[in-house]
Amino acid sequence: MKSRRDFIKRSTIMGVGLSVAPNIIFADNMGHLKEKLRIGMIGVGLRGTNHLENLLLRDDVLITAICDIDKNRIDLCLSKITERNFSKPKIFGKDEYDYLNLLELKEVDAVIISTPWLWHTRMAVDAMKAGKYTGLEVSAANTLEECWDLVNAHEETGTHLMILENVNYRRDILAVLNMVRKEVFGELVHFRCGYQHDLRNVKFNNGEQPYGGGVEFGEKGISEARWRTQHSLLRNADVYPTHGLGPIAVMADINRGNRFVSLTSHSTKAIGLHNYIVSHPNGGENHPNSKLKWKQGDVITTTLETARGETIIITHDCNLPRPYSLGFRVQGAKGVTEFDYHTRRIYIEGKNSSHQWSDMDTWFKEYDHPLWQRYGDIANQAGHGGIDFFVINAFVKCARQNIAPPMDAYDAATWSAVTPLSEASIENNGEPQNYPDFTRGNWIKQKPYNWIKDSY
Amino acid sequence: MKSRRDFIKRSTIMGVGLSVAPNIIFADNMGHLKEKLRIGMIGVGLRGTNHLENLLLRDDVLITAICDIDKNRIDLCLSKITERNFSKPKIFGKDEYDYLNLLELKEVDAVIISTPWLWHTRMAVDAMKAGKYTGLEVSAANTLEECWDLVNAHEETGTHLMILENVNYRRDILAVLNMVRKEVFGELVHFRCGYQHDLRNVKFNNGEQPYGGGVEFGEKGISEARWRTQHSLLRNADVYPTHGLGPIAVMADINRGNRFVSLTSHSTKAIGLHNYIVSHPNGGENHPNSKLKWKQGDVITTTLETARGETIIITHDCNLPRPYSLGFRVQGAKGVTEFDYHTRRIYIEGKNSSHQWSDMDTWFKEYDHPLWQRYGDIANQAGHGGIDFFVINAFVKCARQNIAPPMDAYDAATWSAVTPLSEASIENNGEPQNYPDFTRGNWIKQKPYNWIKDSY
Repeated sequence: MKSRRDFIKRSTIMGVGLSVAPNIIFADNMGHLKEKLRIGMIGVGLRGTNHLENLLLRDDVLITAICDIDKNRIDLCLSKITERNFSKPKIFGKDEYDYLNLLELKEVDAVIISTPWLWHTRMAVDAMKAGKYTGLEVSAANTLEECWDLVNAHEETGTHLMILENVNYRRDILAVLNMVRKEVFGELVHFRCGYQHDLRNVKFNNGEQPYGGGVEFGEKGISEARWRTQHSLLRNADVYPTHGLGPIAVMADINRGNRFVSLTSHSTKAIGLHNYIVSHPNGGENHPNSKLKWKQGDVITTTLETARGETIIITHDCNLPRPYSLGFRVQGAKGVTEFDYHTRRIYIEGKNSSHQWSDMDTWFKEYDHPLWQRYGDIANQAGHGGIDFFVINAFVKCARQNIAPPMDAYDAATWSAVTPLSEASIENNGEPQNYPDFTRGNWIKQKPYNWIKDSY
Repeated sequence: MKSRRDFIKRSTIMGVGLSVAPNIIFADNMGHLKEKLRIGMIGVGLRGTNHLENLLLRDDVLITAICDIDKNRIDLCLSKITERNFSKPKIFGKDEYDYLNLLELKEVDAVIISTPWLWHTRMAVDAMKAGKYTGLEVSAANTLEECWDLVNAHEETGTHLMILENVNYRRDILAVLNMVRKEVFGELVHFRCGYQHDLRNVKFNNGEQPYGGGVEFGEKGISEARWRTQHSLLRNADVYPTHGLGPIAVMADINRGNRFVSLTSHSTKAIGLHNYIVSHPNGGENHPNSKLKWKQGDVITTTLETARGETIIITHDCNLPRPYSLGFRVQGAKGVTEFDYHTRRIYIEGKNSSHQWSDMDTWFKEYDHPLWQRYGDIANQAGHGGIDFFVINAFVKCARQNIAPPMDAYDAATWSAVTPLSEASIENNGEPQNYPDFTRGNWIKQKPYNWIKDSY
């Protein structure tokens, strides 16, 4: 392999980031790194398969094991692996706990967990205990106890956990983060974010296709409807906070010079899912699901206070007809931006005409993140507009070096804790909830991660 | 006057709403109305003068008294009155309590109160006790006790109070209200509104001009800076909720089949006003005002819960550089609109492409409110894009008939109560505050006011 490494180093110097058949060359000049990261995939539904596809484009990983209880998904992944000329992995999935056998393999350095939410924490904890560098899909945890489990397992084992929050790598998000670091907005004051996504045809399907076509869920549904919908039935909470909160937490230096201090949360009534069931051509008033009482309010508003005196509004809005939006707002002493897919506007004092927004395009160009400048062309081949490339790239690069990831166990716990805390506040009429300090006080000396670099 | 009335009636039948020199003809065919409403103006600063100018365009009012402690304002108003060939009013203002002498005049049927906030409730209560139909500028009250004072004075005297919330008459607001009533959004779920207005050059001036030019306020400032800024210095509260909340309260049938049940409120740190003072060319680090500790957080977020299970987010954001926005959102089972001066977009299931907003223009046209269709041409001559015409028109028409106004003492109390309740919540770390029921339970039988008509 020596000559290969030398070639990689030379090509790195000559300019990395170009796609070279058959695999993209990713190796950087990074001290003591593993030759190739040997990855075990735990869960290869739609999300896990997407991660696998991105991994199969790389030359710095091997897929040594795959685990899923659905044989069809295993077969699909094996065909993709063969197609890309990767070695065949070991297969697990004879029952729900077979992932424990995967974790015993010496030929697995790292795992990527893309399973239903209720499996996230327990699998991640087991993976850390087995010494596997752990990549965990969002949300990381369902309860406060699980949040602590992630932190405690990391501290007890010394094994790293990275929460795979892809939105943190969106081009607009990283440009705004760049602007934040360069103090375009001045001292930060207020943020907004959320998950405003009409998920009705994700929460319900006909048991044959993943999206829509019916009003079934649970055992009669497939894909996310099989497990995700139950959370809407029984929990009144912001069950999916990290896509919005992850990027804002980084901008606000949460756990690294700042922390969440408290929150309150309020829920509206729950009418969206019931309406969907009764008005669906395959549903109706007589469908048994029309009798269900949905616990999750249609719009959930959570307001966080930070130690530095900022506030953050998080919105969860997934049961009503509406355009997709994460609804970002970043506001400081010098100005404010509101941006997402449909809105991209900014006002900076002295740069704008009084009371007039301007478009973000020139700002996005000027503050385009080094990562996107370097890898943008490759990233655009990956899922979700390129962000899946970046989150996997960061995971692989950190795992190869066995260093702390940019979004770690403390972040996973902190961002995910919105779920149980919002639930408690809603259940208690908006009562404020103190935020646990998962860093055990270390946020006051922890330095912000260097997000403004071009490697990962 | 008989022949005049007959002429008015005829012209009404032929088509009302056209501007006729010297005065606009407003009289409708309304049962037992006063020949002309005799109005006393209490406070004729910038806002009161604006009301006066709109009154002087009408043929159904007389200005019989004016009160202001600033002789210059009195002189200005007298010249305007003379110019429009109205009879000269009696003048009051020898001291701050001279308005009590105005209230004793038999030749005053109604008063319009446009004074600094701390005078609003006490003057309105005195006016009701004197039997004067009372128009009161926003906000109506500063404390919970004052909110009750308004309601109690109304109930004890039987005299009507109208809160002069002009934003309720904005063309877009009334079109959306029309859409709400016609169930375009289906069952309502969630609302947003607020007052996001960079007021720094209102809160500070040089003592010579009303807006900007310096960092003085209080005794060294003039106009609003003389009294308004002190509220930012000493109160951490949403001190100005009604421009946003008034329109939403009407859409949500508050006090008329619905009510506010509770709220929580969160404040950011306060840096905007200090930054303004120290960076202003006439301010600086050595200016005495740079030593002040401002109590009012720069962004204040309040979330209300209603009896029907909706939530309402109200934002107060007046100390930072930003474009003006009241930030409206109205969301229901069928769709959502976000609209204001810079954003006017809507998504209605079945009418829009999936996940795509559409522009509101055609909707605004289709649902244009009858009031605007009738009076739009006249209104556009008045202040604030026409809305000042409508609020004064409604006041005059209701007062002439001595009937309950569209926005009454209960609304004034309910909308204004956000100030003390948000203050209590902020001071107690976001603790939820139960909302007083100013209707004493009558909201459950009170019918919504008929806002969808073309008269007022």
